[in-house]
Amino acid sequence: MYFASDNSGPVHAEVMQALARANEGFAMPYGADTVMDEVRATLRDIFEAPDAVVHLVATGTAANALALATMCQPFETVFCSPTAHIHEDECNAPEFYSGGAKLTIVGTDDKMTPDALHAAIEAEETRGVHGPQRGPVSVTQVTERGAVYSLSELKALTDVAKGFGLSCHLDGARFANAQVTLGCTAAEMTWKAGFDAVSFGGTKNGCMGVEAVILFDPAKEWEFELRRKRGGHLFSKHRYLSAQMQGYLAEDLWLKSAKQANANSARLLAGLRDVPDFTLTSAADANLFFATLPRATHQRLSAAGAKYYVLAGDVEVGDLDEQLPCRLVSGWSVSEVLIDQFIALAKG
Amino acid sequence: MYFASDNSGPVHAEVMQALARANEGFAMPYGADTVMDEVRATLRDIFEAPDAVVHLVATGTAANALALATMCQPFETVFCSPTAHIHEDECNAPEFYSGGAKLTIVGTDDKMTPDALHAAIEAEETRGVHGPQRGPVSVTQVTERGAVYSLSELKALTDVAKGFGLSCHLDGARFANAQVTLGCTAAEMTWKAGFDAVSFGGTKNGCMGVEAVILFDPAKEWEFELRRKRGGHLFSKHRYLSAQMQGYLAEDLWLKSAKQANANSARLLAGLRDVPDFTLTSAADANLFFATLPRATHQRLSAAGAKYYVLAGDVEVGDLDEQLPCRLVSGWSVSEVLIDQFIALAKG
Amino acid sequence: MYFASDNSGPVHAEVMQALARANEGFAMPYGADTVMDEVRATLRDIFEAPDAVVHLVATGTAANALALATMCQPFETVFCSPTAHIHEDECNAPEFYSGGAKLTIVGTDDKMTPDALHAAIEAEETRGVHGPQRGPVSVTQVTERGAVYSLSELKALTDVAKGFGLSCHLDGARFANAQVTLGCTAAEMTWKAGFDAVSFGGTKNGCMGVEAVILFDPAKEWEFELRRKRGGHLFSKHRYLSAQMQGYLAEDLWLKSAKQANANSARLLAGLRDVPDFTLTSAADANLFFATLPRATHQRLSAAGAKYYVLAGDVEVGDLDEQLPCRLVSGWSVSEVLIDQFIALAKG
Amino acid sequence: MYFASDNSGPVHAEVMQALARANEGFAMPYGADTVMDEVRATLRDIFEAPDAVVHLVATGTAANALALATMCQPFETVFCSPTAHIHEDECNAPEFYSGGAKLTIVGTDDKMTPDALHAAIEAEETRGVHGPQRGPVSVTQVTERGAVYSLSELKALTDVAKGFGLSCHLDGARFANAQVTLGCTAAEMTWKAGFDAVSFGGTKNGCMGVEAVILFDPAKEWEFELRRKRGGHLFSKHRYLSAQMQGYLAEDLWLKSAKQANANSARLLAGLRDVPDFTLTSAADANLFFATLPRATHQRLSAAGAKYYVLAGDVEVGDLDEQLPCRLVSGWSVSEVLIDQFIALAKG
Repeated sequence: MYFASDNSGPVHAEVMQALARANEGFAMPYGADTVMDEVRATLRDIFEAPDAVVHLVATGTAANALALATMCQPFETVFCSPTAHIHEDECNAPEFYSGGAKLTIVGTDDKMTPDALHAAIEAEETRGVHGPQRGPVSVTQVTERGAVYSLSELKALTDVAKGFGLSCHLDGARFANAQVTLGCTAAEMTWKAGFDAVSFGGTKNGCMGVEAVILFDPAKEWEFELRRKRGGHLFSKHRYLSAQMQGYLAEDLWLKSAKQANANSARLLAGLRDVPDFTLTSAADANLFFATLPRATHQRLSAAGAKYYVLAGDVEVGDLDEQLPCRLVSGWSVSEVLIDQFIALAKG
Repeated sequence: MYFASDNSGPVHAEVMQALARANEGFAMPYGADTVMDEVRATLRDIFEAPDAVVHLVATGTAANALALATMCQPFETVFCSPTAHIHEDECNAPEFYSGGAKLTIVGTDDKMTPDALHAAIEAEETRGVHGPQRGPVSVTQVTERGAVYSLSELKALTDVAKGFGLSCHLDGARFANAQVTLGCTAAEMTWKAGFDAVSFGGTKNGCMGVEAVILFDPAKEWEFELRRKRGGHLFSKHRYLSAQMQGYLAEDLWLKSAKQANANSARLLAGLRDVPDFTLTSAADANLFFATLPRATHQRLSAAGAKYYVLAGDVEVGDLDEQLPCRLVSGWSVSEVLIDQFIALAKG
Repeated sequence: MYFASDNSGPVHAEVMQALARANEGFAMPYGADTVMDEVRATLRDIFEAPDAVVHLVATGTAANALALATMCQPFETVFCSPTAHIHEDECNAPEFYSGGAKLTIVGTDDKMTPDALHAAIEAEETRGVHGPQRGPVSVTQVTERGAVYSLSELKALTDVAKGFGLSCHLDGARFANAQVTLGCTAAEMTWKAGFDAVSFGGTKNGCMGVEAVILFDPAKEWEFELRRKRGGHLFSKHRYLSAQMQGYLAEDLWLKSAKQANANSARLLAGLRDVPDFTLTSAADANLFFATLPRATHQRLSAAGAKYYVLAGDVEVGDLDEQLPCRLVSGWSVSEVLIDQFIALAKG
Repeated sequence: MYFASDNSGPVHAEVMQALARANEGFAMPYGADTVMDEVRATLRDIFEAPDAVVHLVATGTAANALALATMCQPFETVFCSPTAHIHEDECNAPEFYSGGAKLTIVGTDDKMTPDALHAAIEAEETRGVHGPQRGPVSVTQVTERGAVYSLSELKALTDVAKGFGLSCHLDGARFANAQVTLGCTAAEMTWKAGFDAVSFGGTKNGCMGVEAVILFDPAKEWEFELRRKRGGHLFSKHRYLSAQMQGYLAEDLWLKSAKQANANSARLLAGLRDVPDFTLTSAADANLFFATLPRATHQRLSAAGAKYYVLAGDVEVGDLDEQLPCRLVSGWSVSEVLIDQFIALAKG
């Protein structure tokens, strides 16, 4: 019963097999492996972007920070949601990689609204050389609170950015989960919606550690490569990044896996809705949601070995009826049996 | 016939098996996996350093840059050899991670001498606040030109550094190869020789992509962890870094593998010494060396599919007798048959 | 009628005279001048801090950024008000000098409250290595919106910070104006109120370009000096910074000047309160305040040559009755005649 | 008898007068003062560059670091002489301002040669993404060891740089002294010789603290301004930087002052050439040179109050005949009487 994070599950058998296949003889290092050529072509096909720059790194933080550093100057500010991973969970990596750029928080909601974005960008307008300059807009899809922007919502955000001449980055650590929710194409959710760069996640959805950075403007390719190298993110034995992505993309594994994860989350939520004192406190558009449950329920679940984050309060000590907030993330590998067992335990 | 680099060969079967073993069920992310506990204990045993800080990253550049950033201030300078990887091959990663520290080149030789080090450190002495301040000394073992420092040579260097109150870092991307050459213990080659931090390489010697950073002073543990995270080098699915290192360390695979690589290099060198016009131009203390061969020989080898770096001159065009320099690196996985075939081709 | 900023007025005659006096013969460069010895002693006396580190720089941004960089690590976050100069008006200088630290905005008010500070600090608590670490708290006195914290308000803020083990910085670009308002000593407003470092402004209050950075903990002296030098803020002909500060401190010129500036602002405000349609929209505790006036009034003032910032809206075009916000800052050098003339014009 | 540095002398009376003239009433801050308009026009005239970007900062380190940061990327390396101020005397400011770029030392001589520059640039060629990328070339005129490049020597260096597509920066902390030596125009020594940017020094030659940065390519103007601001080098009361430069440029004061300084140095050298055991050890093309004198002579000079840098050895203790190296810099303000007195003392 593991609902702590989608980064705690195992690697797909298909990805492990791709790694084993890649482990034959010698291969050119540093991204010159032939598997990477195939991966690049596949991602360009998937994104319907024949000229896109495609590079692999091993972590989502590296993907986001390198993409943003390539898109902005150190005297600029990046616009993002208060719950953005780049703001809350990367220990200043974007500030580090950009050479000291700022992050400007847009509004107070998990989901950025066009009005809040417009207001935030406009507010940086009047100070000339004194204030940070307007830099790229970064949107997280799926958000860290479980929401998925619709295509029109994405477009409305990038329209605001474009109106100010700003570029747009999509943090797609859970890209596949969002795409499954929307039932759209990868192109529709990215460049057709106005995005210039994407962090395309693999790790959370069944890879070992690989994310693709896709830049739709080929002009920045060499700069990106240099920034990746000086960040220590260029793998010598790159074929093992390539192979992960190869296995992940083959036969739509990435979409199937996300579909399973989303279905697991939906099953969990449906079951919990019948639990007395369960309250959903966030969106549940993909494979994670936030909720409150009484302390007694948390104790029962914990005692049975369930793993997930209780976000405030002491599970062990206090009023048994007190509602404590928690986060529940369902990966592709969580079994229906364990989901149902979790629900049953929650029911008491 | 692949002698281009030891990062172009495959991953050990034992390491692949360790990855497969780790791929069961759920595991705590971000280094809290139980395999990491085991790896930490094993490395502390190997280094006879029960309090050492042990962390894993995926690339050698990350290991070096993070270790050095933890050891120095942005207004300091790091002392290193002109051939050091941190100087020539990391695209300013140490400068980046340290926040703008400088690298001071010690002498003109591949191997740093105590006199040259003393002179370089002393030369930074007289400028007070105006010049960069003296920072750590970084020594590469095996050097990038194939040499291995003896234990007394290492000690002589760290003695100079300690005389100025400076800390010492060992770039051990080929740590195991050096240890095999010296026939010493890991402790003797590191803290007993005066080093405060080590980049302990795994990738070049048969892992997929893993290096350990070992800090003998536990005071910097938390700072290192924060720097690793903000560099994007903290893996969520960390167990797969742990498993690689677990497989690498088990049953002395790391030493056996390095022994094989060194033996392969020795066999290659012994054979080439009989080749007319072959000239060894570097040390050959471990698993790589530099040499010159006539253009005609390079053409013959290239035509037969041999892969290695010719460092200057056009292999295809020019006087057939002209000597062209090359680098020959032997990994553990190069077969004796192919080594002998390479030698035979070189003989003509 | 110049109310745009207190940095637009002239330099005190006494400061000019001190510069002239310093301009005799040769002097040791880089802060080793004898005038600096005198300035250091005087500031230590004023602050009742015999061991304080005292250094001079030429701009307020340099003072703040260097002080904060010395107080925090690149993986930390600095807590400040949404209107803080370091956040809004330094073009990412703190992020730059700190090597990529973040700024966390405390609350939504100009004046930081202990509750908001406690909440902001606490919110950074739960993410371990993933989020930025808690760094120093920076408080602006006088705030950018014209407010002065009382001594107990300052103490309440530093108490919160100290409760979390955090250090505290006071941005005192208008230090003297605040001290005059409070009628307290410099020590009471700084280390006795819990602050570890102060940017002590001179420029806005009648110097040419000089600010003192005062660190009450002497341990960071050398680091500060190195950071100042590598920031390009160490003056070779340092005696001219020293002389400005010498002239500024002599015979309480700094306090007299601030008293005059505050009195000028009070006179301006008192007069404007009688103006129909004048609305004060901020605190007016020292020498600046914000207000709204009808467009017609702004037009009349502008036509008569009055200089000040209208913060939104087009003065020339639009409904004559529309209220437009403006900022009015009174320096020490604004004459009462011109203040009264401004008021008369505003009355129409 | 002050020969320690040209930054230890007083400010020209004409510059002090310009400051006094500027100290009337109110002025627009941050470089929008009318004196700056005049200064910009004058410098464009002097440099015969009607479109040049002209900005003022207060220190030479700021001028160099900001110019270079605007000209290079953090993954590049700046080519400079081993004696360059940016390498030896700026405590890593170029590395800091550039976000972590490297400095590559060209040759071993004070004066860069085209061959050494070509070799250094070419050596950075073969490592692709692994090594730092080639960045700008920075040439110091007058060098830190007293040499002045001829126009053809400058042109030969920039020709090498341009052959590789690299831009060129002239560190002209002693610009006027070099121009006087060469008897050329400012344009001939800069853009006509192939330079793209110049640090035009004022401080060492009789200003209080002002340097102009001149960029011949107007495209980088806004970026430079933003970098200056976030470095804390944008002065609010900018008119006092402008006024210094105004006074410095008026009626060729800058050239007259440099002529006097060079003449003072020549007089000193001519006199010392008659001193037994005096050995000139450097060029003496402008207003500084290096030499050796016996310890006894240094003792005599020191006892008489002469100030200059003895660069190695203990003046007080040791063999009286031992030659100790020293640096002798003559500013414009050193009197002939004192020069002759110094010579007489040296003669013994």
